Amino acid sequence: MFRVIYEWRVAAEKMADFQHAWQAVTDTIHETVPGALGSALFRSTQTPDKVLTIAKWRTQKDWEVFWGQSDPAPMRPLHQLGERIGVETFDEVEDRTR
Amino acid sequence: MFRVIYEWRVAAEKMADFQHAWQAVTDTIHETVPGALGSALFRSTQTPDKVLTIAKWRTQKDWEVFWGQSDPAPMRPLHQLGERIGVETFDEVEDRTR
Repeated sequence: MFRVIYEWRVAAEKMADFQHAWQAVTDTIHETVPGALGSALFRSTQTPDKVLTIAKWRTQKDWEVFWGQSDPAPMRPLHQLGERIGVETFDEVEDRTR
Repeated sequence: MFRVIYEWRVAAEKMADFQHAWQAVTDTIHETVPGALGSALFRSTQTPDKVLTIAKWRTQKDWEVFWGQSDPAPMRPLHQLGERIGVETFDEVEDRTR
């Protein structure tokens, strides 16, 4: 598995709208892009406007095909609600959560 | 759910040992500490010695009881293999991975 961590700044008053937009974006990408396996939304307890969305992909190559379109259209609604600070990519070496 | 992201630097030649130690540490904590729900291990594809371990906890309070012991004993083997750079805490707002 492959993971992409997007870091965002989202104002408190826009958080609910951001979550709703992220739900729709996540489902659209999952249903239409090969290898996309959804996303999880985390909100910092230390810096309340700091949000991570952690996407799961089958392989790095699947994500690169998607990302290579540069600023893929399905993600645009999120940019109207939050500022993207960074994008980092990781191999999921092992998942021992239950 | 509550998530704690630990960021580490682990030299390439110590990565396998780090993973083995993390497996044991994760299982020990999961089996002995109330509210601990395991961990996932991610390795950066951009910065190969950058590693994240993302722990899942039932609640923030459960983690604080564990963490309040300051440098909890079960985690010590990891510090012999990697340098811990940071610890950040997040509410898991929603998980839409499949």
